Amino acid sequence: MTSPVRGFSETEFERRVARAQNLMGKSNIDALLLTTPADFYYFTGFLTRFWESPTRPWFLIIPQVDEPIAVIPSIGEDLMASTWISDIRTWRSPDMKDDGISLLVTTLSKYIAPRGQLAMPMGSSSYMRLPLEDFKRLESVIAPATICSDAGIVRRLRLIKSDAEIDKIEMACEIAGRSFARVHEFAVPGAPLDEVFRKFQMTCLEEGADWVSYLAGGAGQGGYTNVISPARQVPLEVADILMLDTGLVWDGYFCDFDRNFAIGRAEAADNEAYLKLIDAAEASFHAARPGVMVSDIFHTMNSFLSDGLGFPDVGRMGHGLGIQLTEWPSLMPDDHTVLEEGMVLTLEPAIQTADGKMLVHEENIVITRTGARMLSSRASKTLPVIGEPQ
Amino acid sequence: MTSPVRGFSETEFERRVARAQNLMGKSNIDALLLTTPADFYYFTGFLTRFWESPTRPWFLIIPQVDEPIAVIPSIGEDLMASTWISDIRTWRSPDMKDDGISLLVTTLSKYIAPRGQLAMPMGSSSYMRLPLEDFKRLESVIAPATICSDAGIVRRLRLIKSDAEIDKIEMACEIAGRSFARVHEFAVPGAPLDEVFRKFQMTCLEEGADWVSYLAGGAGQGGYTNVISPARQVPLEVADILMLDTGLVWDGYFCDFDRNFAIGRAEAADNEAYLKLIDAAEASFHAARPGVMVSDIFHTMNSFLSDGLGFPDVGRMGHGLGIQLTEWPSLMPDDHTVLEEGMVLTLEPAIQTADGKMLVHEENIVITRTGARMLSSRASKTLPVIGEPQ
Repeated sequence: MTSPVRGFSETEFERRVARAQNLMGKSNIDALLLTTPADFYYFTGFLTRFWESPTRPWFLIIPQVDEPIAVIPSIGEDLMASTWISDIRTWRSPDMKDDGISLLVTTLSKYIAPRGQLAMPMGSSSYMRLPLEDFKRLESVIAPATICSDAGIVRRLRLIKSDAEIDKIEMACEIAGRSFARVHEFAVPGAPLDEVFRKFQMTCLEEGADWVSYLAGGAGQGGYTNVISPARQVPLEVADILMLDTGLVWDGYFCDFDRNFAIGRAEAADNEAYLKLIDAAEASFHAARPGVMVSDIFHTMNSFLSDGLGFPDVGRMGHGLGIQLTEWPSLMPDDHTVLEEGMVLTLEPAIQTADGKMLVHEENIVITRTGARMLSSRASKTLPVIGEPQ
Repeated sequence: MTSPVRGFSETEFERRVARAQNLMGKSNIDALLLTTPADFYYFTGFLTRFWESPTRPWFLIIPQVDEPIAVIPSIGEDLMASTWISDIRTWRSPDMKDDGISLLVTTLSKYIAPRGQLAMPMGSSSYMRLPLEDFKRLESVIAPATICSDAGIVRRLRLIKSDAEIDKIEMACEIAGRSFARVHEFAVPGAPLDEVFRKFQMTCLEEGADWVSYLAGGAGQGGYTNVISPARQVPLEVADILMLDTGLVWDGYFCDFDRNFAIGRAEAADNEAYLKLIDAAEASFHAARPGVMVSDIFHTMNSFLSDGLGFPDVGRMGHGLGIQLTEWPSLMPDDHTVLEEGMVLTLEPAIQTADGKMLVHEENIVITRTGARMLSSRASKTLPVIGEPQ
C-alpha cells in the first residue's frame, strides 16, 4: 500500500464527537471527561510521546451540546493549537496547590446541571490518568452533581474503526511484516536474545515505524515459558523456537502480531504444534464476519487446540487493537460482543507444549461487510527455519 | 563505565520493603496496594513491556508486617516467579465479572483490620492503574476499612536512589551521550525531521538502549515552538536549531536529557541564547548539594534567563527521574523539597527567543554527599554546528 495521509479530517473528528454526544443524550450525561492519551488522540488528534511523563494531568471535556474543550497544561498549548480543537484553556503545570482542578471545575460549570452527571470511562480496560486525591477533590467540588460511568460510550465508539483508522493499522502491519521478513539477518545460532530484540526494533524503525512501543517474545527448545518477558542475554541455540511479538506504532496506531522461527532446524513436534496454531487462526479467520460473537471465534480456535495439553493460561486468544496495543473485545468464552464491520482484531491462538512451555501465533484482521480481511501478511504454513548452517 | 549488572540483589528489595513497612507503621497503614509498572518494578523487579496492554489489572500488596504478595493475572505468573517474590496468587484474566477483585479482597483480609487502612499512592504524579468501577467495588467490599493515601511513602522511597539505581541511570545517560555524538551522521540540511527522529532512535538502540520510550524535539529558525511534538515530515534547513530530547531505557531506568544543534551554521543570536542556557545549567549544577531546596536551584537557574523574553510557560525547569521519565521533585518556585544524597535530577533551563519560539537545554545529575555529579556528558559550551556544506 502507499503510505496513508497522516492525521484525520476535521469532518471525521466532528463525526466522532457527534456520535458521542448523541449517546450522551440517551444516557442523560451532561459532559464527558477524558484524561488518557488514547481518548485525547481519538477525539482531538493530539499526538505526543510526552504522555510518558506522569507529572501533569490533562483534561478533555465533551459537553452534550457544544464543542470539545481542552483544559491542559500550558506546555501543551502550542501542539494542541495545531489540532482541530479551538477552545483551549491552560494553566501553568505542575501546580502543587491546584493542578488544574479549579480551572476544570470553572469550565465544567457551564455544562453540568446542579444535579447533573459528569461521565468518565470506568469499565474494563479503562483507567483514570489523574491522582486519586484530585479525583476526590473534583467529586466533592462538583457535588451535588455526580461523576458517573460513561455507560460504555467511549468503548462503543472506539470499537468500530473508520477507513482512515484501518489504513493506519494496516500501515503498521505492513511495516512489521517487512521487519519480520528480515529477522533471518540477525537471528542466528549464538546471537544473544537481547541483541536480537535490539536489532528487530532497529529494523522496525528502518522499515518506517514511528516508534516501537511494544516488543516481547521468547526463545527455547520446544517453545517459550511466557510471552511477556523482555529479552535475556541468552544466546539462541540450534532448534530453539524464537518468537517476536511487536506492537509498533504508525501515526498513533498499533499493529500487534508475532512470528515464530525455528533456529537452524525445526523439530517434528514443533512443526506439528505450529501447524495447529496456523489451522486455528485460519479457521477463526474464515468464521469471523458481522453477526458472529467473539466467544464463537474463541471456540472455533480452541477446537483445534483443546486436545493434548490444551490452552495455556493466558486468559484469551485475541483482542481488539487500534490506538492501544490491546482494546476491546476479548476472544474468550465470556465475551459475547457481536462482530461488526470495522472492528479490528487479533487472532492469537496459543498451545501448551511440554515442560510448561508454549507456542503462540498471532494475526491481525478487520471485519468487513461480508467476512474478514487479513491486515497482517499471513504467516507461513510451516515453521520457517532461519539461521541454518551454511 | 562498564555495563552494570542487571537487576537488583534480594537484599536491596528487602531493604526497600522494610523501609516502606517502617513508614507504614508510623502512619497506621495496614497494607500498601500498588498497581503501576513503576511501583511493581521498584518493589519486585518485575520488568515487562506488557504493561502497554491496558486490559488486565495487577496488584501488589505490601503488608505492614510480612512479605509482599503479588495478586496478578496468570499470564504473568512465570515471569513473576523469576523475581524475589515468593507469594504469588493468580487468576485467569480478563474476567468480565470479577477481574481479580475477589482474590485481592480475600488476600487482603488477613492483613487489614476491620476498621483498618489500606493505602494507595494518591498524590502528585501518581495514578491508579485500575478501572474506576473496580476501585469503587474494592472500596465498598473492604468497608468499614478504608482506602487512604500512602502518606507519600512511595514518593519518599523512590526519591532517593541507591547506588545500583544510579548506575543504571548513568548507563542510560552514557548510551544517550554516544547517540547524540552521532547525530551529525544523519541530521543534515534537507533531511526530513521524521527521518532524523527515526535514525536517532535506531542509533540509541545500536548504542545499547533496551528500548526508546521517549523522543521529542523540534527544529526551526531561531528555536522551536514547543518541546513535546512528535516529528513532522519537514526537511531541516540551514541555520535551523535542531533539538532532540530522549528518555531511553536501560534495565528499566531512564535518562532524560536533550542536545541542541545548529544545522549548517549558527546565528549569533542563537549562540547567545544557547550560552545563557549553558551558564544557567552550570550555575545550578554548582549550587546543587544536600540541604539546598529545589526552589533555590530553580531561582539560581532563572536568574540567567529572566531578562529579555524570560521563561517560557513550561511550568518547571527540571525534575527527578528514575524508573519514570519524570519523577518528583519539580524545579519550580513552589517546590521546597530539600536535596539529599542519592536524588537524581534533570536541570532543564528554557528560554524564550523571538516569535513564540524557545530553546531548552537539559542535563542529568545525581546529588552526592558534598555536591552534585553530572550523569550526562556535559554539553558543549557553544552551539555545535553540524551538517556544514562540504
